[in-house]
Amino acid sequence: MARTVDLNSDLGESFGAWTMGDDDALLGVVTSANVACGFHAGDAVTMLATCRTAAARGVVVGAHVSYRDLAGFGRRAMDLPPAELRAETLYQLSALAGIAHVAGARLGYVKPHGALYNRIVTDAAQARAIAQAVAAFDPSLALLGLASSAIEREAGEAGLRFVREAFVDRAYRADGTLVPRGQPGAVLHGGAGIAERALRLATDGRVVAADGTDIPVAVDSLCVHGDSPGAVAMARAVRRRLDEAGVAVEAFV
Amino acid sequence: MARTVDLNSDLGESFGAWTMGDDDALLGVVTSANVACGFHAGDAVTMLATCRTAAARGVVVGAHVSYRDLAGFGRRAMDLPPAELRAETLYQLSALAGIAHVAGARLGYVKPHGALYNRIVTDAAQARAIAQAVAAFDPSLALLGLASSAIEREAGEAGLRFVREAFVDRAYRADGTLVPRGQPGAVLHGGAGIAERALRLATDGRVVAADGTDIPVAVDSLCVHGDSPGAVAMARAVRRRLDEAGVAVEAFV
Amino acid sequence: MARTVDLNSDLGESFGAWTMGDDDALLGVVTSANVACGFHAGDAVTMLATCRTAAARGVVVGAHVSYRDLAGFGRRAMDLPPAELRAETLYQLSALAGIAHVAGARLGYVKPHGALYNRIVTDAAQARAIAQAVAAFDPSLALLGLASSAIEREAGEAGLRFVREAFVDRAYRADGTLVPRGQPGAVLHGGAGIAERALRLATDGRVVAADGTDIPVAVDSLCVHGDSPGAVAMARAVRRRLDEAGVAVEAFV
Amino acid sequence: MARTVDLNSDLGESFGAWTMGDDDALLGVVTSANVACGFHAGDAVTMLATCRTAAARGVVVGAHVSYRDLAGFGRRAMDLPPAELRAETLYQLSALAGIAHVAGARLGYVKPHGALYNRIVTDAAQARAIAQAVAAFDPSLALLGLASSAIEREAGEAGLRFVREAFVDRAYRADGTLVPRGQPGAVLHGGAGIAERALRLATDGRVVAADGTDIPVAVDSLCVHGDSPGAVAMARAVRRRLDEAGVAVEAFV
Repeated sequence: MARTVDLNSDLGESFGAWTMGDDDALLGVVTSANVACGFHAGDAVTMLATCRTAAARGVVVGAHVSYRDLAGFGRRAMDLPPAELRAETLYQLSALAGIAHVAGARLGYVKPHGALYNRIVTDAAQARAIAQAVAAFDPSLALLGLASSAIEREAGEAGLRFVREAFVDRAYRADGTLVPRGQPGAVLHGGAGIAERALRLATDGRVVAADGTDIPVAVDSLCVHGDSPGAVAMARAVRRRLDEAGVAVEAFV
Repeated sequence: MARTVDLNSDLGESFGAWTMGDDDALLGVVTSANVACGFHAGDAVTMLATCRTAAARGVVVGAHVSYRDLAGFGRRAMDLPPAELRAETLYQLSALAGIAHVAGARLGYVKPHGALYNRIVTDAAQARAIAQAVAAFDPSLALLGLASSAIEREAGEAGLRFVREAFVDRAYRADGTLVPRGQPGAVLHGGAGIAERALRLATDGRVVAADGTDIPVAVDSLCVHGDSPGAVAMARAVRRRLDEAGVAVEAFV
Repeated sequence: MARTVDLNSDLGESFGAWTMGDDDALLGVVTSANVACGFHAGDAVTMLATCRTAAARGVVVGAHVSYRDLAGFGRRAMDLPPAELRAETLYQLSALAGIAHVAGARLGYVKPHGALYNRIVTDAAQARAIAQAVAAFDPSLALLGLASSAIEREAGEAGLRFVREAFVDRAYRADGTLVPRGQPGAVLHGGAGIAERALRLATDGRVVAADGTDIPVAVDSLCVHGDSPGAVAMARAVRRRLDEAGVAVEAFV
Repeated sequence: MARTVDLNSDLGESFGAWTMGDDDALLGVVTSANVACGFHAGDAVTMLATCRTAAARGVVVGAHVSYRDLAGFGRRAMDLPPAELRAETLYQLSALAGIAHVAGARLGYVKPHGALYNRIVTDAAQARAIAQAVAAFDPSLALLGLASSAIEREAGEAGLRFVREAFVDRAYRADGTLVPRGQPGAVLHGGAGIAERALRLATDGRVVAADGTDIPVAVDSLCVHGDSPGAVAMARAVRRRLDEAGVAVEAFV
């Protein structure tokens, strides 16, 4: 029974004059911060501020790399040659690494974002491009993503540690994959149930799928959100429930 | 009498489907490559390819940082708060540093580009923002720019080495400043004269200004261009003249 | 004594996944909507939605043209050649005009945004570029800006109607110019006072400056904001006060 | 036997400091100019200059609309919701329409570019989004694309004239589709053969496919390129051959 789990969240997603999410609140809840690197969100000022706050709170930072798509927030699936994806991943990762260094934050991992996250569940060529970029930059960094996926395999091929992520507020199908956004019931709401679900994922590695089946889900890190007051409250409830139950909530690196 | 000089050039200025300059030719001539970092030119693929070729040729790379202005090629002077300029400089420098690391290239310095280069000759606040960004990232990096300028002073304040640049194909005024682009005679043409001019700058630290006055110009690095066949030929003529005269052409770091 | 005034507001400033302002609320208050055209804010989806709502409410739309600067929200003063500014103004204006046409909205004017708005108070070359772009596209469009400025003069030279704008929540200096943002007291807060101030501007064309002097201010349109709940409340209070006093609040075109 | 054909080419693909193609040469050859609208290439200055030259030469202009992808030159296939594609098409088309109006050029049609061009051969949802955008803006505009495709069907549904395009330098498969770029022999070289091929496409509506089969190809417009000195020479050879054979080379609108 797992007694340790990481909590991660997408942060630093403001851009220029536009703000998104309650980063300050989330940085008091999570142990790992996925920091946007300027391709789907985030600008240099935001990245630096986010890394500084993360450093002050002892939160590990990860590079939240994306397709180059500010207008679509990285949610537009995109065909691009692996060599381009590799170079663009390296660019984003490097930019964040340098900023984290200046901010005194600890860079621990890379998490692909949005459409890229989904694509590399199955697209081996794009998954390999990312794994190779990370390994070439720093093989001690971990890759965070969906378990039993192309990216998990390619991380292994590249000699990288892979961190398996589960979602506290997303419905699962009986085969362990997520119910796609846009389908009814894909995203769960309601605090207490979510917190219990998170606890069971963290301690038993099991969740009840949308069809009622009780399924195993490998979990190293749980993802929580902070893009609405309700989301922040849910994240806090999850953290509190884990703390109460004696689960050690700590960064995986 | 100086018997050693660096030759630098702006490289890696292609973007996506657009190419600019003859990087391959220039990397056989210069000892320092100012590599665009994506804000005025350059993309991740171009940066990686340029750093790899530079590494193979033993050319030191520098971060050619700029205002965020692809449409204007970084030539539009821009007011931005020093904190933003500092963070944007750090972002670009970090991105190039990581790419150079993966390419096996040696990152030695930062050279501001275009409108930013000109602005920090006199704008102390913007100059300080850049010097602070470089010093925070890596105080062993040098700053390359115009001598007797705000950026030279701020580099000193930040504890950075400053490398004084002269231009082989630009007319000087009697006070040591450049004749502004757009004025008649600002840019010089004609191979043999330029090569002799370069030699005299490198060995005597003197040049004949536009009004005929013979003036001193402090020189650690000479800038050559490669954006036309004529420019490449001129750069080669400069290099050959320096070599023939026994001047050691080598990177300053 | 003026008994008619226009109310305008900056709208459609969301971009991609980021939202800004309460457009729906403001479109129930104002008679003219300055719609961002994609250079400092706004994307095609937002522009179309804003124009549709404006059309449904009978609000006239204007092209809120800007320097090309998403990262800086158009607040970074920028040097660019008049020919470029002219073409970029024409591009933005054309894009909005076509979208307004499809949405069934009435395009009535152009209002430069942010740093460009301030620049063309004094910069005749940039002011002329904008006036020429508007006149070339459609000489029946008006230009909205600060009175007694370069842009007022250039609008006149280009044969365009000029609409003089005043600000209900900005402090004025005795010479009729605005106290610059960033200086203490530049932006006014507090509902009742603002509404009375708006009424006096609309009916008497006078306002009390920061030093206590009572000064004349030529007013065809009053600018209100909607970027916070307080701002929306203030805009509503202004509208209510004008309505109560019998001032006809209507678009200037 | 068809005795009239249009020649079109992709033009105005420079961006900022980067130039691409020999627009001036091509505008002396073609009768329709596909002008980039800023999403994959082209900026306001380039668009205005291209439209002016087209107007002076009597060349009809078309809006060469694309996914929003400067870094990938519009060659990255992209999933985006139809409502977004519709609005982004409208934005680009409107921008070009206004610029063409000011330049005195005649806007006649819309041609989707690159990855979008290929996608809407089969993707009915994206094809419909484009057809609807064009029809909403101006139902008298034509749509230029591949025959027997989703976009041809959707253009018909929307009441738009559809113009069928063939390629003089691309290999066809026996089923009338193009051999994909990247496959050996996809792009043809060699002047005389191409010119004869063009003539036969224009007059007989037939071409010899890669496997030797003689197939029918419906042709209203032939596409030629100008991105290299060889391409310009080929375009001129095609035009000359058509002229010599008495084919009327003229715009389809």
